[in-house]
Amino acid sequence: MGLAIFLILATLISTSDAESDAFNPIHLLRPRSGSGGHRVEGLDCLSWRLAVETNNLQSWKAVPESCENYVGNYMLGKQYRHDCDVVADAAIEYAKSLKLGGDGKDVWVFDIDETTLSNLPYYARTDVQFGALPYNGTKFDEWVAEGKATAVPAVQRLYKTLLSLDIKPVFLTGGSDTFKDIRTANLYAVGYHSWLKLIFKGEADKGAALLYKSKKRTELVNQGYRIVGNIGDQWSDLLGDNAGNRTFKVPDPMYYIG
Amino acid sequence: MGLAIFLILATLISTSDAESDAFNPIHLLRPRSGSGGHRVEGLDCLSWRLAVETNNLQSWKAVPESCENYVGNYMLGKQYRHDCDVVADAAIEYAKSLKLGGDGKDVWVFDIDETTLSNLPYYARTDVQFGALPYNGTKFDEWVAEGKATAVPAVQRLYKTLLSLDIKPVFLTGGSDTFKDIRTANLYAVGYHSWLKLIFKGEADKGAALLYKSKKRTELVNQGYRIVGNIGDQWSDLLGDNAGNRTFKVPDPMYYIG
Repeated sequence: MGLAIFLILATLISTSDAESDAFNPIHLLRPRSGSGGHRVEGLDCLSWRLAVETNNLQSWKAVPESCENYVGNYMLGKQYRHDCDVVADAAIEYAKSLKLGGDGKDVWVFDIDETTLSNLPYYARTDVQFGALPYNGTKFDEWVAEGKATAVPAVQRLYKTLLSLDIKPVFLTGGSDTFKDIRTANLYAVGYHSWLKLIFKGEADKGAALLYKSKKRTELVNQGYRIVGNIGDQWSDLLGDNAGNRTFKVPDPMYYIG
Repeated sequence: MGLAIFLILATLISTSDAESDAFNPIHLLRPRSGSGGHRVEGLDCLSWRLAVETNNLQSWKAVPESCENYVGNYMLGKQYRHDCDVVADAAIEYAKSLKLGGDGKDVWVFDIDETTLSNLPYYARTDVQFGALPYNGTKFDEWVAEGKATAVPAVQRLYKTLLSLDIKPVFLTGGSDTFKDIRTANLYAVGYHSWLKLIFKGEADKGAALLYKSKKRTELVNQGYRIVGNIGDQWSDLLGDNAGNRTFKVPDPMYYIG
């Protein structure tokens, strides 16, 4: 993903003169919350991001316009990757501490978008602006159909550790089963080769994310599986029924799913 | 509280030459996560703080030694106050959107320590180091007995708004009822004058915070009250039974209560 981000960044920089300045392309790789640059903006946006990550702010439709630069710098910079690493470290430490059943029934639920796979190349586009422009389902579906999402490195590290511990991954996404083949190929392409189940949202799966995911997790539990862990970028991945013995929140300041 | 913090700071600065340098007294009022100072440390500590605030890190015993300065700067600086303001803004916006019963049964649960009242003057002491030194119950009880905790300004703003909306505050603390009188006086002294209930942990209240608070909230619900909101600095305030229609997490990187 490092190379991909660099290429996106290079593209943004090289095209910034040609594009309208109103797009505010990202030039800096570090957050602006410190002593340089827009201090007050950074302070505001860091507070906004914390409120998002702690589920204090809900049902928001887009990144505040004044925080687009901040979110872009964060997502393309070291802080996001480091934040993800600390989540993975905590999850790995927890996983290694578990006394497992040894019967193949210990599972770990992974959300896909912005957890297992990263759509950052899409979100960094000038016509998406890291979620500062309203969500466009048609465009996002076109991006998904390209099958070019990257792995989230820290989460992939957790995934590999869990496999070595014989904890079975279950991928549970609110994404439509229309994209089942391309998404499966995308997971393979970036290094996810093994899972117990890969659950997409089908025609019959109605309801908001939290209820849909609760239902699918409850089916797992009814099949005798123990959800020892659960990781996602949205609180709707982590709240509700049978959420798992421990849940882990991956950062995502780009969009909200309730 | 602003003046109090200034006085503490002034004290720390004026005594820093006399004290051992090993105590690392706080000299700066702004976080070090930006371009100045210990960038990598700031990056690490900001990730650590985010992991704490999102409940990814649990059961930690003390602030990492390498983050003591960072946490001190954060707690005494603008970022903490701004973070609290954004939480209060979100809670107030939510409260104002509610259709209330008009029967006096709509209640809002407030935790006390680091939510309603701030013990920052205690935590800023060189023998406490913002939670980087192990918790000392005797010392903390002595501080509580002084009755000198300050208000958390943002939460007090929420409290006053809720009173104006006729949503009744319920203070629910894991603190011992040994301190009931002094704490009540402390609440009055800093501007909290009205509540439906003020619940301390009694001799008969056994169990960890999450279970104790769940039990007390369930009693409220069984008495016909509707918990429309719940605010606390610990996830053990906000998870469990009858947590409330919406919960709000106030920052606290100084200690963990499970």
